[in-house]
Amino acid sequence: MALGKDYVKQECSLARALEVVGERWTLLIVRDALYGVRRFGHFQTHLDIPRAVLSARLQSLVDTGVLDKQGHDYVLTGTGRDLWPIVHSLARWGDRNFSDRGPCRLFVHIGCSEPIDAGGACPACGRVVPPEELEIHPGPGLDAARQDPVSVALRSPHRLLEPVPV
Amino acid sequence: MALGKDYVKQECSLARALEVVGERWTLLIVRDALYGVRRFGHFQTHLDIPRAVLSARLQSLVDTGVLDKQGHDYVLTGTGRDLWPIVHSLARWGDRNFSDRGPCRLFVHIGCSEPIDAGGACPACGRVVPPEELEIHPGPGLDAARQDPVSVALRSPHRLLEPVPV
Repeated sequence: MALGKDYVKQECSLARALEVVGERWTLLIVRDALYGVRRFGHFQTHLDIPRAVLSARLQSLVDTGVLDKQGHDYVLTGTGRDLWPIVHSLARWGDRNFSDRGPCRLFVHIGCSEPIDAGGACPACGRVVPPEELEIHPGPGLDAARQDPVSVALRSPHRLLEPVPV
Repeated sequence: MALGKDYVKQECSLARALEVVGERWTLLIVRDALYGVRRFGHFQTHLDIPRAVLSARLQSLVDTGVLDKQGHDYVLTGTGRDLWPIVHSLARWGDRNFSDRGPCRLFVHIGCSEPIDAGGACPACGRVVPPEELEIHPGPGLDAARQDPVSVALRSPHRLLEPVPV
């Protein structure tokens, strides 16, 4: 991780943001937390991530105020939930450019029962929808081969941020 | 970079996106390309990045279709320009959470002369503005100490994507 400190020479807010979430795996951890994963073991089995790496990343996210440790749970703070539009846009960019089968996940605005668009807005009501009002559904690009408890639980519709029923 | 391959076990489009732009420095290179940096030497001096790392990242961005090599210039493709909302949102998230002095850069919708909001929309016309219609201006958080030619050039208003006058 020798290059990390060099980021501080960059005056841009993007560089500061990347100091916090630019480490390998970090945005995938934030994605899982948005989906409602809260326990160390569940992050580990869903992400296939080495224990030591996961442990370091979670601690760093707690230190920077993205996650809050509540008992055994890692819960997104307001700063962490605020990453939703970035996680969503980057995933949609991945879909558009690198997926043959379309999106792995659809995010449905609960009030309107419509999937949000690539910009995060609901086509029915026109609002940019916060994660609290979204339900995750399997999309056409989802790989159904994964059998870990989080992957299995997320094959049923589930409200974002609420604990995944595992 | 031993963890990179593990990303492929993640079914999510976010994981695919992170394979392309999740390497250290990559989003800062894309940011500079959006600002109009095109030459190897200009990326290097503006980013303070080791030559070998810059060379590898630029080649990888060409290979994945984010940049196009045109003579001596590295120019963003449509796929690359499509990263603008992500780079912008992540920088604004950095501003909100980790900057004492406010944004380093303001992005002004040329038609309306208004800076866009955190969601990328122009408060005057209400449209989400593409990078072609934006002008970069210094913001209150800008560190004016940097004297490399790109930093100096970007202290004057400059249209995004157009070559930085260095």
